[in-house]
Amino acid sequence: MIRSGSYDGVTAGLANGFVQANLAVLPRDLAFDFLLFCQRNPRPCPLLEVIDAGEVEPSFTAPGADIRTDVPSYRVYEHGELVAEIPSLEQIWRNDLVSFLMGCSFSFEAAMSDAGIPIRHQEAGSNVPMYITNIATQPAGVFSGPMVVSMRPVAQDKIVRAVQVTSRFPDTHGAPVHIGDPGAIGIRNLEAPEFGDAVEIRAGEVPVFWACGVTPQAVALNCKPPLMITHSPGKMFITDRRDAEYAVI
Amino acid sequence: MIRSGSYDGVTAGLANGFVQANLAVLPRDLAFDFLLFCQRNPRPCPLLEVIDAGEVEPSFTAPGADIRTDVPSYRVYEHGELVAEIPSLEQIWRNDLVSFLMGCSFSFEAAMSDAGIPIRHQEAGSNVPMYITNIATQPAGVFSGPMVVSMRPVAQDKIVRAVQVTSRFPDTHGAPVHIGDPGAIGIRNLEAPEFGDAVEIRAGEVPVFWACGVTPQAVALNCKPPLMITHSPGKMFITDRRDAEYAVI
Repeated sequence: MIRSGSYDGVTAGLANGFVQANLAVLPRDLAFDFLLFCQRNPRPCPLLEVIDAGEVEPSFTAPGADIRTDVPSYRVYEHGELVAEIPSLEQIWRNDLVSFLMGCSFSFEAAMSDAGIPIRHQEAGSNVPMYITNIATQPAGVFSGPMVVSMRPVAQDKIVRAVQVTSRFPDTHGAPVHIGDPGAIGIRNLEAPEFGDAVEIRAGEVPVFWACGVTPQAVALNCKPPLMITHSPGKMFITDRRDAEYAVI
Repeated sequence: MIRSGSYDGVTAGLANGFVQANLAVLPRDLAFDFLLFCQRNPRPCPLLEVIDAGEVEPSFTAPGADIRTDVPSYRVYEHGELVAEIPSLEQIWRNDLVSFLMGCSFSFEAAMSDAGIPIRHQEAGSNVPMYITNIATQPAGVFSGPMVVSMRPVAQDKIVRAVQVTSRFPDTHGAPVHIGDPGAIGIRNLEAPEFGDAVEIRAGEVPVFWACGVTPQAVALNCKPPLMITHSPGKMFITDRRDAEYAVI
């Protein structure tokens, strides 16, 4: 449906149980640095698959798919500026483009829900709040910058369980990077997220922060590459792999 | 002591509790393919650190160390042939050399011992038996070839625990890749390992197989790179990081 253009909406809630992925496409001459950046920063950048330069099939995570057509919408950036939002990459594809697929939070949110931990932004029908922190990523080549985190309020008596269930999924951001005081990681105001929407934090709840897949995009755009392509926010690539396949135990 | 040359032996049993690493050094023009190979084959090639081209300090895993001098012994391969075994890389270092440090089995063996699972080859004072399997690795660029596994006999009533404790350490090979029938993964004769020494399998024990860090060396040498440097067998790089830091839960 996505390939034919008959569905171009957000992918949250679609194909439950199947891993969805963030997409970043870069020219070959930046690919080593970006791959190294992901290796050095596995929590914000958990690589699920790297598709060889020029190739379009994610043969490990979705054999038969075409990365140029099977994402609902793409964003094209030139020198760090958004220049187009398009439903297909077929017209602009090049043989030097390397595609990176990275795990996203949908997998661990499903695990939290299964463990009886409600997800506030899902209840509110809004996007998860995301914040730029003072946690530096480990630089690699031209890529460097602060870690972006997502936040979910968790009731105090559910925090241990939230750590446990998300720890099982290091390929989709894994365990939290911080629990509690936002100021300790450089976040001044939880009501003013840099990306997404603020959510209510109720009495007895603690803000819990996970490394966020927006990090590699933000870091890559920082370096203003001649060309970078990503999925449009919330419109992910849906793989054929199940969440449970990525649990380490 | 290793840097000064006053210790040049094997490193098993040294600095207990600290992670030891396999070393592979390759020229920059093969580094992307090798990094991608590791990303695609995390069980045999669990990357702990990639040191930038020409740099010699493993700043994440052992700040202040020097990768040219702090391994007891190095093997130098040219076009896939061993041409030298030397105590230091200072004389042959080049600015285009990228160093890859990969987790080794010592970490998960310690976890098994702690869980009351004896390690046969340690009891015997021999090297772990290693076998070439019919499990194909996922190729990347010039690198491809079969997975090499190590084998440890485990009593039937300890197998579940062995899976659990080693699953906690995906950065040091993690859970077994196979339990039981050697023929199912293409191993004909357990008494004739391709590397290391055969060990006794006692009544009530089952052979359990883990992905082995010899895999990336074997695969890399297969492609006969102009230059590749590794640690000498059993003489690993000892990091400043503790085993427990790499446990996912």
